[in-house]
Amino acid sequence: MQKFVFTFGNGLAEGEGAMKELLGGKGTGLAEMNRLGIPVPPGFTITTEVCTYYYAHERKYPPELEAQLRAAVGHVENVVGGAKFGDPADPLLVSVRSGARVSMPGMMDTVLNLGLNDATVEGLAKKSGSARFAYDSYRRFVQMYGDVVLGLKPETKNEADPFETLLERKKEARGVHLDTELDERALKELVAEFKAEIKKRRGLDFPDDPWDQLHGAIGAVFNSWENPRAVTYRRMYNIPAEWGTAVTVQAMVFGNQGDDCATGVAFTRDPSTGERRFFGEFLINAQGEDVVAGIRTPQPINIAGKRNPEDRSLEEALPAAYRDLVRTYEKLESHYRDMQDIEFTIQKGKLWMLQTRNGKRTAKAMVRIAVEMVKEGVLTADEAVLRADANKLDELLHPMLDPKAEKRVIARGLPASPGAAVGKVVFHADDAEELAQKGERVVLVRVETSPEDIHGMTASQGILTARGGMTSHAAVVARGMGKCCVAGTSSINVDYAKQIMSVNLDGKVIVVKRGDVISLDGAKGEVILGAVPMSAPALDEDYQQLMRWVDERRRLRVRTNADTPTDAQTARNYGAEGIGLCRTEHMFFAEDKILAVRQMILADSVDERRRALDKILPMQQKDFVGIFRAMDGLPVTIRLLDPPLHEFLPTEESQIAVVAQELGVKPDVVKARVAALHESNPMLGHRGCRLAITNPEIYETQVRAILQAAVEVKRAGTDVRPEIMLPLIGHERELQIMRELVVTAADAVLAETGEKIAYTVGTMIELPRACMVADRLAEQADFFSFGTNDLTQTTLGVSRDDAARFLGDYVKRGIYPVDPFVAIDQDGLGQLIRLGVERGRATKPELKIGICGEHGGEPSSVGFCHDLGLDYVSCSPFRVPIARLAAAQAALREKGQAR
Amino acid sequence: MQKFVFTFGNGLAEGEGAMKELLGGKGTGLAEMNRLGIPVPPGFTITTEVCTYYYAHERKYPPELEAQLRAAVGHVENVVGGAKFGDPADPLLVSVRSGARVSMPGMMDTVLNLGLNDATVEGLAKKSGSARFAYDSYRRFVQMYGDVVLGLKPETKNEADPFETLLERKKEARGVHLDTELDERALKELVAEFKAEIKKRRGLDFPDDPWDQLHGAIGAVFNSWENPRAVTYRRMYNIPAEWGTAVTVQAMVFGNQGDDCATGVAFTRDPSTGERRFFGEFLINAQGEDVVAGIRTPQPINIAGKRNPEDRSLEEALPAAYRDLVRTYEKLESHYRDMQDIEFTIQKGKLWMLQTRNGKRTAKAMVRIAVEMVKEGVLTADEAVLRADANKLDELLHPMLDPKAEKRVIARGLPASPGAAVGKVVFHADDAEELAQKGERVVLVRVETSPEDIHGMTASQGILTARGGMTSHAAVVARGMGKCCVAGTSSINVDYAKQIMSVNLDGKVIVVKRGDVISLDGAKGEVILGAVPMSAPALDEDYQQLMRWVDERRRLRVRTNADTPTDAQTARNYGAEGIGLCRTEHMFFAEDKILAVRQMILADSVDERRRALDKILPMQQKDFVGIFRAMDGLPVTIRLLDPPLHEFLPTEESQIAVVAQELGVKPDVVKARVAALHESNPMLGHRGCRLAITNPEIYETQVRAILQAAVEVKRAGTDVRPEIMLPLIGHERELQIMRELVVTAADAVLAETGEKIAYTVGTMIELPRACMVADRLAEQADFFSFGTNDLTQTTLGVSRDDAARFLGDYVKRGIYPVDPFVAIDQDGLGQLIRLGVERGRATKPELKIGICGEHGGEPSSVGFCHDLGLDYVSCSPFRVPIARLAAAQAALREKGQAR
Repeated sequence: MQKFVFTFGNGLAEGEGAMKELLGGKGTGLAEMNRLGIPVPPGFTITTEVCTYYYAHERKYPPELEAQLRAAVGHVENVVGGAKFGDPADPLLVSVRSGARVSMPGMMDTVLNLGLNDATVEGLAKKSGSARFAYDSYRRFVQMYGDVVLGLKPETKNEADPFETLLERKKEARGVHLDTELDERALKELVAEFKAEIKKRRGLDFPDDPWDQLHGAIGAVFNSWENPRAVTYRRMYNIPAEWGTAVTVQAMVFGNQGDDCATGVAFTRDPSTGERRFFGEFLINAQGEDVVAGIRTPQPINIAGKRNPEDRSLEEALPAAYRDLVRTYEKLESHYRDMQDIEFTIQKGKLWMLQTRNGKRTAKAMVRIAVEMVKEGVLTADEAVLRADANKLDELLHPMLDPKAEKRVIARGLPASPGAAVGKVVFHADDAEELAQKGERVVLVRVETSPEDIHGMTASQGILTARGGMTSHAAVVARGMGKCCVAGTSSINVDYAKQIMSVNLDGKVIVVKRGDVISLDGAKGEVILGAVPMSAPALDEDYQQLMRWVDERRRLRVRTNADTPTDAQTARNYGAEGIGLCRTEHMFFAEDKILAVRQMILADSVDERRRALDKILPMQQKDFVGIFRAMDGLPVTIRLLDPPLHEFLPTEESQIAVVAQELGVKPDVVKARVAALHESNPMLGHRGCRLAITNPEIYETQVRAILQAAVEVKRAGTDVRPEIMLPLIGHERELQIMRELVVTAADAVLAETGEKIAYTVGTMIELPRACMVADRLAEQADFFSFGTNDLTQTTLGVSRDDAARFLGDYVKRGIYPVDPFVAIDQDGLGQLIRLGVERGRATKPELKIGICGEHGGEPSSVGFCHDLGLDYVSCSPFRVPIARLAAAQAALREKGQAR
Repeated sequence: MQKFVFTFGNGLAEGEGAMKELLGGKGTGLAEMNRLGIPVPPGFTITTEVCTYYYAHERKYPPELEAQLRAAVGHVENVVGGAKFGDPADPLLVSVRSGARVSMPGMMDTVLNLGLNDATVEGLAKKSGSARFAYDSYRRFVQMYGDVVLGLKPETKNEADPFETLLERKKEARGVHLDTELDERALKELVAEFKAEIKKRRGLDFPDDPWDQLHGAIGAVFNSWENPRAVTYRRMYNIPAEWGTAVTVQAMVFGNQGDDCATGVAFTRDPSTGERRFFGEFLINAQGEDVVAGIRTPQPINIAGKRNPEDRSLEEALPAAYRDLVRTYEKLESHYRDMQDIEFTIQKGKLWMLQTRNGKRTAKAMVRIAVEMVKEGVLTADEAVLRADANKLDELLHPMLDPKAEKRVIARGLPASPGAAVGKVVFHADDAEELAQKGERVVLVRVETSPEDIHGMTASQGILTARGGMTSHAAVVARGMGKCCVAGTSSINVDYAKQIMSVNLDGKVIVVKRGDVISLDGAKGEVILGAVPMSAPALDEDYQQLMRWVDERRRLRVRTNADTPTDAQTARNYGAEGIGLCRTEHMFFAEDKILAVRQMILADSVDERRRALDKILPMQQKDFVGIFRAMDGLPVTIRLLDPPLHEFLPTEESQIAVVAQELGVKPDVVKARVAALHESNPMLGHRGCRLAITNPEIYETQVRAILQAAVEVKRAGTDVRPEIMLPLIGHERELQIMRELVVTAADAVLAETGEKIAYTVGTMIELPRACMVADRLAEQADFFSFGTNDLTQTTLGVSRDDAARFLGDYVKRGIYPVDPFVAIDQDGLGQLIRLGVERGRATKPELKIGICGEHGGEPSSVGFCHDLGLDYVSCSPFRVPIARLAAAQAALREKGQAR
């Protein structure tokens, strides 16, 4: 028979620490503490398999469960000795908690004091010698159960909690201020009033039978696994729905039985800074939820933590219990070899542990704890590297809003690019630029951004959009710039005409006008009214130490996607080992070039086009000079012009008029040309090397600019290593023609100048066809760079600009576990990439291969690239350290498997 | 040393019939005739390898060539005996002709009488005894050489040929009418005048040295391989540029030495009807080009061919030579086992053969000759099937313009859909419908068509567009309808406002107004002013016989893409064995449904959407009933809704207003919804099964309509075999969800009605990802159908709507040998399809697999599908016979290889 219930208690446990998948974090923690001889109230855990079964069988339980449940309750009764579940004379009370593999807000959390009814409450009163304690526990139970199991919650967002309302009324009626001042009679009345309110509002009788109570609570935990908040959380953190949750049922211990009782939470190190100090809060004579409820002020756990002289620490109040707690936390940290987040209750001077788990921490704390634990000899450097959360590192690298500041969040969007921004709202790129030039800090708000907004984005502190996903134009460009961005904030309404944005917040419309200040939290996707203070990133010595270990361990090189000398320098500071993708089109958008670019596009003949290109040449050359200098000694991969030409043309009437005047043609000529360049599916249109098949002079000019820049910096003493990359190659003959074009143009410059510069010519692999014929492409290529953004679009047939409308449903329904534009779709796209790598290397075993899509900075994708044997990944400057860490982790995992 | 020159003459030849790749069609024909003992003037062929070398080495010859050339000229001198090349006393004259593997108009054709100069002409006069003949030959030589080698041509399209002008002037000056009336003095003057004109206009001295002349002519042949007309022709007929051309140099024989001399061309059977009769034309006392020049009227070759009593046939004029000719043609046809196209010259009563090749013929003749040759025992049925040109069959299946009619071609576009159309020009779909309802025949002229034009296309005889390629909306829909279409006619200018189209023809603007009559030739891509008479297709008994042989030999099934009962019936008549693709969206565009469809799209809630769908349900059911009846006993694959919803919404202001009124909402609501549904890349957007992931009720309704229709027709005695197909599947979980949806909806209908209907559920394979995970998809699918249109778009990253702008250059430069939307790109896409088939069958060895893209009716693609072991191809009704033939040919080729 399958075992669905695992008991623990009395220093014994059927489960153990390695069974997290089955017992959840809470269940394994309790089992493991039992095995360590730490005092834990006895109990049992119902496995995650029951949850899985429950959802696979229309919310029914496996038939074997009930018998195992009854046996487990019997086990608890035996360990406790005396008290029986539902016994009116001496009732056993239990807590019921959820516990998934990873801690997950949004699920049903806890029901305490379960087992009480009008009969057993009297037994508890007699047994404990305190009727007030018994009725306080009963009141708490009915309130919690009514809330989380029976679903009595405020009906509108403006309504207060119905239980709290009754409680407040009662205190008012009795003329008291604190819950603790209510006597047993008042509490007894409250229990009846609570039950009546539940009956009235939910039409439910409060269950009197403790077994009904227990079944109800277990069901509530399982049901909460699929509630919208839990689903959303899972989606955000890539937690598969199949994991399910476990349920832990445990004998109650009471922190609310008098002044020799207490309850608290603590961290074995400071979760904010990582400092090695025991850190926590507690309340005398209280039960679990009181510490966080904020009605009474929790006290510091030890003398070191006191903020005011009048604070009374646990160390002072209950010194013996505190000493037990210190011994226990030290045992737990050294057992788990990680900072622990613990919950405890002291009942009549005796310490009981209710939970231990690895504590959540800031990125800064994560790094400091890891480094210090290595120095303490607790961890090896390998372990420290493996344990670091690569995604979390991101926090360290961007300025952030002060986490302690007061915030009025008016909308939530996608956390598209981390960091923070505070500034005046503007709705137009030109306004952003204008205000920024006057020294103002601005936040650019758009329905969505387009390449025409680049200058405005550059000028802004952050970007807020109403439409578009994690890989929308705004998101991608912002991340590239290392600039904060909240995207796809569907609750905001942008009205360009009126120059306002509005949000309907709980029925009230908030209007934000041009010039009003807002703050953005790019890591959380929050839009906040007013200015929130900022805190700057500090890359301390702990960080540097961790990254040294990282670099010693990784095989994969990490380059950056950078289009400007500034980006290049930033990335280099973050450890980039070259540029993997320098997009030349962003240079074309620059104010000083766009006119010549438009002339080039509007040219009627090759000659006219060449004249326009002759103007662009020296400007491009200057761009490259700056980048080459910043990357002295490192390779720089420059991708020739990629996007469709119409992206460079203006679309608004007013802009068209300006361009027409500048060019000395009629607006209709510009308009006609813009219309002629319109494409149904520009992603699959006339772009990339296709532009150079029809108009070779564009690439010829770019290559000339690259080589002339290389010669210029070389003569000034820079070690320059240009790699010229061709976009959107699908056919070996296409690559052959392009390679000839590049080599001819490049060698002409070298012949003219008499310099020798070792440049290479390679290809993007961003079309499925390119993967299929990679063996033939390799004959013409010095290197491959997988453009996983476009390759995802073509392989999956999904336009990332349009995906917002359906990709959410795909992730929600578990079709794709994660947005395939965020993490490489290894099952599908991964096979195609693997095939491309294998075929390319079959022709040229030493072929240099990298990736340069957005995925290059995403840890699971970096791991995949390592496993494929790629030479490098390239990512935005601010993700370089993340990629370095992920690469080291992949190398260590490989080493681990090899052993 | 590599052999670049192959000699022939005197019944011996270094080359032979199997060396076509090296010697070209003309060279092998001459070599082979020599070996057969047929009289052929001696000569030699310079191989195609020289042409290849020439283009690979900046138009230089291999160094060994000159010596081989000199030796070969010596060989000719030896065979001729006496005459020497350049000998003033007894000059050897030669002809120089091009000859590629396949006959190719556009290249330099012929220079005759080469070797003449002011000295040798006197020798020729003396030797032949006729100064007039010598100077006539000299005049012809200078004229031909001046034209084709030295490039003296009219400078504008309105100018007459400069040589002809001088010739006319001379005749005028001498008061004569015919060339033959000019005496040697006049001819001598003309030679001088021709040379002076060349000097004046081209700045070139006419070469006197026969060797210079020979080198010049050979160079002209090689250069003509890359002239624009030749390049265009190669592109149209998929001839690789690498093939190159050969050059044949041959001793002259003279048909212009008196009345016992003649020259002519003939076919061994009638190339127009295929009738077995010797058929040709000739001229007494003439040289090659005179027969086609049209100055003198050529005479029929035999008495049977005489049209008028005064005609004088060769059979009557030179009966001995005629008898030789008959013996020769019979020998040639039985040797080549095919209808021959021959050229001959009779010099002083002696027959000389100058060329033999398989004759070009109409589709009708192709079929008749093949079938009769089997009956004659010349060919096996296998050979007859293998030899038929599948693409050519198309001609037989569409009505056509009378080929003999006078035509004023005003523009040329792409031959997008064969057949012919004559009708009044209209510029709007509604106009087309209106006029058609009044019984008028109309031709719809649009810049390009969209799904909103479908009703107008249905109402029209043919469609003419200014934009779009061979796979543009107009082209695809027209071919599906079996309707003539000329697409991408860039020279026409359509002005909707003025309701006119204009063409600039040789500097003159021709304006065609609404209501003016034009004719279209869909097979040639011609736009003709006025009405051209039509000839109907006749599927005679020869055709039926050939197709019986075809069906006995093929393994691959041929289905059709059909969306209406009429299409289905047409296809069935053409031999379709089921429907491989029934697109439900075309039904949605129908006048009577579009309103409900728009309501469905504009619905605010699921309930509202369901109400709209409830209106659509009975209409869809009726559509399916008609199709099931037409396909009684055959499988019908129905694809659920595929295109993005915004395609169904109106885009023009006036239409939006109408829709808004119909729906009882404000135009702004419609406009906002249309805008909200806008996509950047709709091809990769919210379409296909993605619509049903977000809005399952659409597919549920469609499935219900299908099953209710099936039950209805089954009860009426029809053998119904529905196959339900899901579009745009990329992930196995997506397919699983869709399959569940389909089965649930279908089984509900069966349960309600108590009927049993064996339906299957399968998937399109039209995304690269689907190919990669085909093994997993096969677990959920009863069948696969490769949607090669979309799969080409995603695999190559090319939007077919936008490809016109660059794909032409790709084909022109030989990157893709053929437009990949016309023939499956076997090298790239083919690998992916192969992988999908292998993986699908790895899971389910008996998995039924077909293709349903446009490629399903293209012979090379059909062959590829056969080779892959597919079960069926599906194509537009009018291409069903072509696919059947191609399938049989593939089966025969496979059998041949197995032997």
